[in-house]
Amino acid sequence: MKIEFHPIGTIHTPYKKKAPFQPKSNDKGTFYLEIQEKYLTGLQGLEKFRYIYVLFFLDRIIHKENINIAHPPLGGDIKVGVFASRSPHRPNPIGLSIVKLKKIEGNRIYTSGLDAFDNTPILDIKPYINDLDSKKDANYGWIKFKNLDDKEHFMLHIKGLPH
Amino acid sequence: MKIEFHPIGTIHTPYKKKAPFQPKSNDKGTFYLEIQEKYLTGLQGLEKFRYIYVLFFLDRIIHKENINIAHPPLGGDIKVGVFASRSPHRPNPIGLSIVKLKKIEGNRIYTSGLDAFDNTPILDIKPYINDLDSKKDANYGWIKFKNLDDKEHFMLHIKGLPH
Repeated sequence: MKIEFHPIGTIHTPYKKKAPFQPKSNDKGTFYLEIQEKYLTGLQGLEKFRYIYVLFFLDRIIHKENINIAHPPLGGDIKVGVFASRSPHRPNPIGLSIVKLKKIEGNRIYTSGLDAFDNTPILDIKPYINDLDSKKDANYGWIKFKNLDDKEHFMLHIKGLPH
Repeated sequence: MKIEFHPIGTIHTPYKKKAPFQPKSNDKGTFYLEIQEKYLTGLQGLEKFRYIYVLFFLDRIIHKENINIAHPPLGGDIKVGVFASRSPHRPNPIGLSIVKLKKIEGNRIYTSGLDAFDNTPILDIKPYINDLDSKKDANYGWIKFKNLDDKEHFMLHIKGLPH
């Protein structure tokens, strides 16, 4: 069974050759989603949301011998299953990021930092809704914090603050 | 540009002909993700997470004249752009649900209620990580609550509690 999708637009970021592992809220440069004109009316009401999901096609993934195993950058020597990781090397290379929506101008949605290469094809945009999506009792899975400093380091890393 | 994916497994739910709009935490019946044997090692470490994302192919969507406009079930008479909604009728019909992971037995991942039809193809599974994914300052976008009762109704609806 083959499933076929098509881009609804393109992500624009300053990342031409290297991209961060996760979105960074204070990333320098301009980040925006350029939506194809035919989907423009599909953006009505989106500007009301503080956060949005961006689903994108990880089109610059290189072949990997064992697609099932990931080496997360924050995990040290740890190896985990690809579905227990956010690795871009996945059986179906779909990227999922939550970003802050800054403003919409025409067919451009300006956002906070996005962990994607410039010109990445966009598959979908969905609103991030409080309570429905913000699970306050979520945990950290296999991610281990040796101490409070370690956890603060993780938080700074996620937020993209200098550390 | 065409983007091609393939199922990594199949969702099993009690919903043969009707499915709820959002996952319901107290849904009766058994919900599990059946993963193809070749991806089994990709599940290592996943059992440590309390919540997971399930990305799936909305394969039972019927043709709609104006794909850009949605009529959300909770919105009354309101019409919003498809990207400001969680409607299954989308340019690329990708479903995204956050569910509680109950247990993993072999290639079966048992979860809380899932808003998908039985036999829906799975595209990806990702861990839901506290802080990274739980945006505590998220808002409700265009969703309006007339009063506190209204908001409580929304919460009960999301949680699938009788009301």
